[in-house]
Amino acid sequence: MSCVPSALVAGATGFAGALAAHLLWRHPEFELQTVTGRAEAGQRLDRVYPRYRVPLELQELDIDRHGDVDAAIVAYPHAASAPVVAALRERGVRVCDLSADFRLRELVTYERWYGPHPHPELIAEAVYGLPELHRDELRATQLVATPGCYPTASLLALAPLARAGLIADVVIDAKQGLSGAGRAATWQTHFSNSGENILPYNIVHHRHTPEIEEQLAALGADLRVQFTPHLVPLDQGELVDCYVTPTRAVEQGELEAMYEDAYGSEPFVEIAPEPAEVRDVRETNVCRLHVAVSEHTGKVVVLSAIDNLWKGTSAQAVQCLNIMFGYDETTGLL
Amino acid sequence: MSCVPSALVAGATGFAGALAAHLLWRHPEFELQTVTGRAEAGQRLDRVYPRYRVPLELQELDIDRHGDVDAAIVAYPHAASAPVVAALRERGVRVCDLSADFRLRELVTYERWYGPHPHPELIAEAVYGLPELHRDELRATQLVATPGCYPTASLLALAPLARAGLIADVVIDAKQGLSGAGRAATWQTHFSNSGENILPYNIVHHRHTPEIEEQLAALGADLRVQFTPHLVPLDQGELVDCYVTPTRAVEQGELEAMYEDAYGSEPFVEIAPEPAEVRDVRETNVCRLHVAVSEHTGKVVVLSAIDNLWKGTSAQAVQCLNIMFGYDETTGLL
Amino acid sequence: MSCVPSALVAGATGFAGALAAHLLWRHPEFELQTVTGRAEAGQRLDRVYPRYRVPLELQELDIDRHGDVDAAIVAYPHAASAPVVAALRERGVRVCDLSADFRLRELVTYERWYGPHPHPELIAEAVYGLPELHRDELRATQLVATPGCYPTASLLALAPLARAGLIADVVIDAKQGLSGAGRAATWQTHFSNSGENILPYNIVHHRHTPEIEEQLAALGADLRVQFTPHLVPLDQGELVDCYVTPTRAVEQGELEAMYEDAYGSEPFVEIAPEPAEVRDVRETNVCRLHVAVSEHTGKVVVLSAIDNLWKGTSAQAVQCLNIMFGYDETTGLL
Amino acid sequence: MSCVPSALVAGATGFAGALAAHLLWRHPEFELQTVTGRAEAGQRLDRVYPRYRVPLELQELDIDRHGDVDAAIVAYPHAASAPVVAALRERGVRVCDLSADFRLRELVTYERWYGPHPHPELIAEAVYGLPELHRDELRATQLVATPGCYPTASLLALAPLARAGLIADVVIDAKQGLSGAGRAATWQTHFSNSGENILPYNIVHHRHTPEIEEQLAALGADLRVQFTPHLVPLDQGELVDCYVTPTRAVEQGELEAMYEDAYGSEPFVEIAPEPAEVRDVRETNVCRLHVAVSEHTGKVVVLSAIDNLWKGTSAQAVQCLNIMFGYDETTGLL
Repeated sequence: MSCVPSALVAGATGFAGALAAHLLWRHPEFELQTVTGRAEAGQRLDRVYPRYRVPLELQELDIDRHGDVDAAIVAYPHAASAPVVAALRERGVRVCDLSADFRLRELVTYERWYGPHPHPELIAEAVYGLPELHRDELRATQLVATPGCYPTASLLALAPLARAGLIADVVIDAKQGLSGAGRAATWQTHFSNSGENILPYNIVHHRHTPEIEEQLAALGADLRVQFTPHLVPLDQGELVDCYVTPTRAVEQGELEAMYEDAYGSEPFVEIAPEPAEVRDVRETNVCRLHVAVSEHTGKVVVLSAIDNLWKGTSAQAVQCLNIMFGYDETTGLL
Repeated sequence: MSCVPSALVAGATGFAGALAAHLLWRHPEFELQTVTGRAEAGQRLDRVYPRYRVPLELQELDIDRHGDVDAAIVAYPHAASAPVVAALRERGVRVCDLSADFRLRELVTYERWYGPHPHPELIAEAVYGLPELHRDELRATQLVATPGCYPTASLLALAPLARAGLIADVVIDAKQGLSGAGRAATWQTHFSNSGENILPYNIVHHRHTPEIEEQLAALGADLRVQFTPHLVPLDQGELVDCYVTPTRAVEQGELEAMYEDAYGSEPFVEIAPEPAEVRDVRETNVCRLHVAVSEHTGKVVVLSAIDNLWKGTSAQAVQCLNIMFGYDETTGLL
Repeated sequence: MSCVPSALVAGATGFAGALAAHLLWRHPEFELQTVTGRAEAGQRLDRVYPRYRVPLELQELDIDRHGDVDAAIVAYPHAASAPVVAALRERGVRVCDLSADFRLRELVTYERWYGPHPHPELIAEAVYGLPELHRDELRATQLVATPGCYPTASLLALAPLARAGLIADVVIDAKQGLSGAGRAATWQTHFSNSGENILPYNIVHHRHTPEIEEQLAALGADLRVQFTPHLVPLDQGELVDCYVTPTRAVEQGELEAMYEDAYGSEPFVEIAPEPAEVRDVRETNVCRLHVAVSEHTGKVVVLSAIDNLWKGTSAQAVQCLNIMFGYDETTGLL
Repeated sequence: MSCVPSALVAGATGFAGALAAHLLWRHPEFELQTVTGRAEAGQRLDRVYPRYRVPLELQELDIDRHGDVDAAIVAYPHAASAPVVAALRERGVRVCDLSADFRLRELVTYERWYGPHPHPELIAEAVYGLPELHRDELRATQLVATPGCYPTASLLALAPLARAGLIADVVIDAKQGLSGAGRAATWQTHFSNSGENILPYNIVHHRHTPEIEEQLAALGADLRVQFTPHLVPLDQGELVDCYVTPTRAVEQGELEAMYEDAYGSEPFVEIAPEPAEVRDVRETNVCRLHVAVSEHTGKVVVLSAIDNLWKGTSAQAVQCLNIMFGYDETTGLL
């Protein structure tokens, strides 16, 4: 018998699920009970991902057998995730979903980008799992929609400006390592294609755009965002450059005070004195920001660096679980 | 005795000069006579850069001994370059200068970014070495200022829109490989810093900005440009994303026709059906463009991929020399 | 009507075939007539491989339609290749086969490593396409078995020692870039696996071993070779370290004379004064060697660097075609 | 006042010292009191190495002020290290030295490779800090010579065979990431040189050779080792391939039993069922081994993967400190 809450990671063979399993396995306040993964069921997770060192055997998910836990992280693709989440919620499990299924408040927006929603009735219950913006709601919820990695970096970069009503227009140019493309072996992820290359993709229609826009609107900045992602030749890490045309002239000192005010007491947000680099946040739950105004153009440039798998996905989910279960937010993440 | 014009590369030990030497060495219409480089004088260039296979001994530059040539590429740092260029011009040598010394039309702009100009009297004589924009002037000049790599990629991306009066505002986010940082060993270029990293630098005040603005203004787009560069973990290659707020609504078909019209007969500009990637232009003199309008934001996104050392510097200089000497523009570059 | 021999590349969508097509397309003495590839038939090759700029449409191979050429490079997997080669040979086409099908002299060895041989009757006709070892036979043959990349690098490294009877024992530790793993997208070639990693594979049973042994035996060194390959995080390039226990004590000067004697007049072999590096041979047909004897252990260390796709495969095939057709061996390869 | 031993890291601005500081800063049983570094004295360490997040100001080392600690890790170059170690030992500080100064038992060997020894009288006191080989001596000593990274990987790979008298001859081919070349910016570590390259160096005379030989001799294998290192394009990680000619025929099952027997209860050594890869040990104190005998050559191939900065240097030093202070060996290292 365990004295700490038991946990399940459903879909532990993708990059996000495997890292979630790693983080919960070494977490002092959860007991990772089950890891699932259909294709590799029967193998131990530390055979599939030696570096994560989780010595549990992968199961084929069976809600009746595996759903008797206190907490779950669900790492399924969108649409496939919602039914698993629904079944777990029926059993009273507190869930962090890593898919897109519960990130968008507006059903119509979801359906435009992802198709029919399997469980629209759960949308209202879900809280957007960005603790720096939704900490109080996270304390009270049982269902968290973990943000996409691009929205995490972009929203932390833009939130102070959005709240201050300072964003007239914004261009977001995002660069990410190949782990962001997932574990599937494709021509895109082939080293001989992605190495020594820069791969722009979905340059005018990426589905993280509506997620960013919905959250910005909730902060008071109701506008259309130009968002363009790229893959660059590294594994883990993401840098988002936000180019903001401000609604009025702003000064460097004012910006620095605004960001210090917003994030000075946040355990996982750093304001960097120099341009933020992804190497400085690799394998951490930290978002590292740098803000500068151009005297030449008047534009505000905000750089936001995260590890796409950590703060961008799985570690942020654990941060949310810590909040949901009343633990110190940094437990198991330092 | 040689039947073809003789050539000098001054400063052949930096990345740009060494590549220029390589290209002229294998060029069928020039005879590379001398390569210079102070620090490594006495060594053969193929010892310093085995891959370029130029079996000439590096000399310490002596204009009296080495200036008796028909053509020269000068690969010195700014301010150090102008005196060498002046001395060569006095001897009647046709010169491609790779430095910033003759790129800017406005002396005051030069001096704001680079300090006092050693030979302002030569500025008027110099032609900006972007053949796709200045081909006719290049045919008639004896002094070429080879553009910076960022301006090359940016201007080829933006020229058709600038000429059409379509640019209301533009953000340029540039990504480049480490060769762009030059041959000097620094912490920036250390593999353990630049590998698995993305390095934004000079994010609101890079000195290629005035060069882009001056050329855009000459094309009819007189505006301030937000330009932000990054180093990404590859060696040669540069991708520039231009985010244009157009002065009126534009359609995809109109854009494609505009770019086809501008570049359809250019030997070194390609319009790509998919987002342009740097791997596709590596070690070529090609600029590969892709243009798309966002139905969501109305913004025009132009991607421009070049090899920063080839089309971005040395191969473009050879393209200019071909034009100056009346050769087919592609000679020695295919 | 063409005044130069016509050529076919069968299987032009793999890395080796695509490069072969690129090299023949720009070759002054061949006219590339047809490129084939089943999966991508109907697409232009420059859409599949923009960087190679071959504007031909990929065909589904039909020997009756495409076999009416003077020369062919066949880039099919082993066992699939031999029937195509046989059909082309029946039509009198001179063929360079890139597969393993005709590399081994001994049928029994082939069948142990690759299974039943579809056309054993052609084995005797084939010449092993390493010009530095078999130039005279290549002049007279119509069928060339292009060596594997590991054997190419290893044999050029070891041939002088083998001929001199100096090899008592040898360990070959090979490192290669990811292009060596082929175009198929696999977990092995996924950037998130192969980046920041070193991947040893087939450490005690790689099928290039018998090919190395057979050729060494023909040179007088009949022994068993310990061969172990690794993938390292780069794209093109291969370094082979040969650790030779000599049959008697040797001195550095003797070694250098031996290698100079063997390769001094070879257009594509360089003896490097410092340890050979793969960057120095990238996208060239050069094999760069460095030889040193350890005063401490008495062992001879030979380093051999090639581009696995160029000298290791496709450019070497073109070198062989040049010999077969009586052209200067370097035509189209400098 | 602190209830745990206080610690000093002298030379915290190199890669090894900075990581040591990071590990001691987050270690639950030491209190990192001082970090020193001359060139950057006055700056905070988390400014120099943001990712290590040690918020201490770098001091210029002053033994009188900083030597009043319980434990010290000294990360100075060889010869510069010994005087600092001596001064700390005089004050009774328990020291892990990361330099070569106390690794070799034989003074004459040291002096042949490194020059005059500043404190030969301390050699006898020092214990070689490889816990898997010298655990009992480490419990009793006050001075530890942390092994070089290559010897760490090589000795853990070879120790079982050496003890069993099975090594007749051995070739060690080592591959390491660029962090192994240190923090100094050189042409070697320049991304444009080390990227897309493989850099063999000191191929027949690397000074880690005598260290490996001395330790092997102590285990019963008194022989000369052929050791050749390479830099490959990754940051942290090292793979060592040991090719052993055994003194008698051995079988796979026997080898596996031998390694299981040697390391089955070691917390930081893993026997991998497949070839060991460096990605699996990155940022861990684990040495991952794989052993295989070739049926073809009879040779035994042992692969040994470590993180050169962790198990290869600083984390191993912390493992030694844990032993010296009687803590669980894994404290602060999981």
